Amino acid sequence: MRTFQQIGPLRTYLRGIRQEGKTIGFVPTMGALHAGHMSLVKRAEQDCDIVVMSIFVNPTQFGPNEDYNSYPRVLQQDLQLASNSGVDAVYTPSTEDMYPAGFQTLITPGPLAAYLEGEHRPGHFSGVCTIVAKLLNIVQPDRAFFGQKDYQQARIIEQMVHDLNFGYEVVVAPTVRAEDGLALSSRNAYLTEEQRAAACAISLGLNDALRAYTAGECSAKALREIVECRCRNEALVSLEYCSIVNSLTLEPVEEVCSVSAVILIAAKVGKTRLIDNILLPSRTS
Amino acid sequence: MRTFQQIGPLRTYLRGIRQEGKTIGFVPTMGALHAGHMSLVKRAEQDCDIVVMSIFVNPTQFGPNEDYNSYPRVLQQDLQLASNSGVDAVYTPSTEDMYPAGFQTLITPGPLAAYLEGEHRPGHFSGVCTIVAKLLNIVQPDRAFFGQKDYQQARIIEQMVHDLNFGYEVVVAPTVRAEDGLALSSRNAYLTEEQRAAACAISLGLNDALRAYTAGECSAKALREIVECRCRNEALVSLEYCSIVNSLTLEPVEEVCSVSAVILIAAKVGKTRLIDNILLPSRTS
Repeated sequence: MRTFQQIGPLRTYLRGIRQEGKTIGFVPTMGALHAGHMSLVKRAEQDCDIVVMSIFVNPTQFGPNEDYNSYPRVLQQDLQLASNSGVDAVYTPSTEDMYPAGFQTLITPGPLAAYLEGEHRPGHFSGVCTIVAKLLNIVQPDRAFFGQKDYQQARIIEQMVHDLNFGYEVVVAPTVRAEDGLALSSRNAYLTEEQRAAACAISLGLNDALRAYTAGECSAKALREIVECRCRNEALVSLEYCSIVNSLTLEPVEEVCSVSAVILIAAKVGKTRLIDNILLPSRTS
Repeated sequence: MRTFQQIGPLRTYLRGIRQEGKTIGFVPTMGALHAGHMSLVKRAEQDCDIVVMSIFVNPTQFGPNEDYNSYPRVLQQDLQLASNSGVDAVYTPSTEDMYPAGFQTLITPGPLAAYLEGEHRPGHFSGVCTIVAKLLNIVQPDRAFFGQKDYQQARIIEQMVHDLNFGYEVVVAPTVRAEDGLALSSRNAYLTEEQRAAACAISLGLNDALRAYTAGECSAKALREIVECRCRNEALVSLEYCSIVNSLTLEPVEEVCSVSAVILIAAKVGKTRLIDNILLPSRTS
């Protein structure tokens, strides 16, 4: 496995790959790799000749009171995992290379970023879009892979790639879960054993709602109440939002029958903020 | 000369060019071509194997009370000029293709866009950056060519290309002027004969200031006064701003000796808004 810290040598390496006529799959990450990231790598290996991963904890997507400083950084372990799973090249830029003195151009997403995470984390998606655009411009992959766990992020990136004519394919792969249903996240490492057990209320609630929906429940209010009930029963879980929205526009829906919708959750478990979601496929499709 | 309205066929054509190992020069324009645009084409022909021009009057860079509707549109004449000057391919996208329903992602420039044109035309540079990024992503040139007449625009685009790692070279070519000194602009077509004569005060004032600077005048205030004096003497010319700024950061300077500075002007001549500028090279370099 090749590793690159500098843009120049990475661009040279990738130019060679492209000249050989090989396709490039790109998995951008913030490191602290888990089976969710590895499922993206596996998917990229199926779809492309070469898999490039980036590992970069991007400061511009963290708010001033968020966990940028404490975010888990385990580079040697990540490189081992990436190498074992067949990643061809890892790019680990420095913060100074990504944001040199005088840096000032941002990408501003539109209405898709106005709700949900965008409301609770002002500027977050602008930081996400900006770093993803930078990395896409450096790697110029054929396909880029994102996890459904960050549903709103994936939709905003799809929209950005479309709006700005990046010409790359965005692939969104299913959330990977622990045996008890908890969505895998690098932030799960923050949880105590007790918090970890309580956190399951989130995915259990989402599953309850999906079951009710499958059994015929259409009211967003009723479905939300099912999720909220699960979370209320866990003293350690404090719901930040539970919203049912159109899966494409992310606009709130009242009745979930003729459109494809998604239930999106953010909750605090202790000081750890977790997000999760579940798709409610349209009944008419 | 090839012409393309659709992204798909253009991308296919350009992929072929790149596979032949040829370099691509890109000249984005809003049409109504004049000798200024043609000097960019000539420069692109010198630097690159293939020259691609776009012609698109970009709505997102016009304010609500600006001249988007009346902006000169003379496509057949432009295509003839482009063909005569050796342009290899012209891209003329439709507004619907550039901004389809649901379009929402913008590029937001930083402090470079806060002053001067940015102050007088809110949102203008966000519109410029967004369309240029889109066109760069579609054309993927080796070099893109811009005129110095739009000095602030050129600096902001250079900064965007650098900040977002586009990896293309931005070439800024000198302003082309009429015999009497007026900077060529598609908007000069709006001027009556009388206004056209009066408009020369702008370039005459800039030249007066350059002469004074060369002769030793360092005070930005004194140099500005020289330009303003010329414009005050023309009743038809109404100065919007005359600023002397650092040529890289665009921050105002008081003394023009140790830094490379530029005098930037915007003025109304009748209802027509014109801009111009002149570089004051650093004396120490």
